[in-house]
Amino acid sequence: MMHKPGRLIGLGVGPGDPELITVKALRLLRESPVVAYFVAKGKKGNAFGIIEGHLQQAQALLPLVYPVTTEALPTPLSYEQVISDFYDEASLEVAAHLDAGRDVAVICEGDPFFYGSYMYLHDRLADRYEAQVVPGVCSMLGGASVLGVPLVYRNQSLSVLSGVLPHDELKRRLADADAAVVMKLGRNFPKVRQVLEELGLAGRALYVERATMANQKIVPLDEVDPMSSPYFSLIIVPGERWQG
Amino acid sequence: MMHKPGRLIGLGVGPGDPELITVKALRLLRESPVVAYFVAKGKKGNAFGIIEGHLQQAQALLPLVYPVTTEALPTPLSYEQVISDFYDEASLEVAAHLDAGRDVAVICEGDPFFYGSYMYLHDRLADRYEAQVVPGVCSMLGGASVLGVPLVYRNQSLSVLSGVLPHDELKRRLADADAAVVMKLGRNFPKVRQVLEELGLAGRALYVERATMANQKIVPLDEVDPMSSPYFSLIIVPGERWQG
Repeated sequence: MMHKPGRLIGLGVGPGDPELITVKALRLLRESPVVAYFVAKGKKGNAFGIIEGHLQQAQALLPLVYPVTTEALPTPLSYEQVISDFYDEASLEVAAHLDAGRDVAVICEGDPFFYGSYMYLHDRLADRYEAQVVPGVCSMLGGASVLGVPLVYRNQSLSVLSGVLPHDELKRRLADADAAVVMKLGRNFPKVRQVLEELGLAGRALYVERATMANQKIVPLDEVDPMSSPYFSLIIVPGERWQG
Repeated sequence: MMHKPGRLIGLGVGPGDPELITVKALRLLRESPVVAYFVAKGKKGNAFGIIEGHLQQAQALLPLVYPVTTEALPTPLSYEQVISDFYDEASLEVAAHLDAGRDVAVICEGDPFFYGSYMYLHDRLADRYEAQVVPGVCSMLGGASVLGVPLVYRNQSLSVLSGVLPHDELKRRLADADAAVVMKLGRNFPKVRQVLEELGLAGRALYVERATMANQKIVPLDEVDPMSSPYFSLIIVPGERWQG
């Protein structure tokens, strides 16, 4: 018997506070027979932690476990190849449910299309299956809200940057930004702070770890322990206040 | 009798689809005795339209009506002065409720700290009153979701730009962006399209009006009528697909 294929649903669940999920994401989460999520080996996963209180017994869970936790792999392994193979396999697992007629909600911390791993499933599956994306509150806006600082005024330009960028590119882009957010800090924190100091922006910059989560931490930039900055931390350089 | 002052609440209500409000914003909206919103004269207002179905009879409405709808004013009026006076007055109206012990929820389309007028109340009041900001799904992520296109991959940089920027600055910033969003189109649309064509980006750029709203419209960039592009339209130049 042929089934009507299931729908692929990219479900933004927001930045961490379980109440910052949208009404729509919550409805679709509850209606989905299969809930998939990316997760590091041995971890629960941030997205899963956000929504687990809403799950029902009848729902199948599909953890998609990253094969690596670092981009620095011993030769002859290449991160690009390993992770590409992983997304290929994850897509097959998701597709098996879709082929059987089951909708699959892929839960994503923040927003699915804003630096989310869901994008790699979407790119592999959305041309063959009906796909729907529910946008979510992204981490940088969660961060601005708990820091209590307007991010970007009027006609200012906002630059969203990865802490992974090399020193010189980061410096050039930050120097040109009216307002900026630097994501993916972790081990990149010392470099990012150095660049901000060189540009005279360190005094304007604000730092937060795990914004809106239960274990959120706001620390002055010059007091951050560079060895303990997690990946889910970010720096905001807010736009200059406009006197409107 | 002295009251404990009320709380100022900046409430992001999302990009347009009423279901894209967060559970938290909905709860605080329902709990707020006063609901304030910015609106153009004679209009209902987008934010108000999003939440009106949730209002209860006992809630007081406080419309804050913009005195002007254009930045081009006849001399000797200056837009900066007129709008600054307006925000001063709006702050006084809100403060009167706060002083009387009533919480005021200022509803904001999208997110309060992402180009929202709420920021000007926040800057005037947050040092004197308890303020809380509930982040929301911003318009650019609503736009990416309905266009079905991942916005920004991995370590790409995202530039969020205002269509109001002059041709040369817009061109320079767009040329330097891995991925970009141009907001505030309206009368700026012909200039923005021209810049995208000059950079060879017009083929990659996607256009949407009123994303996630009931009257949403997705139009190929070269078919947009430049005379009818609304302010609440945006262009997305998605990041180049990463083959991870």
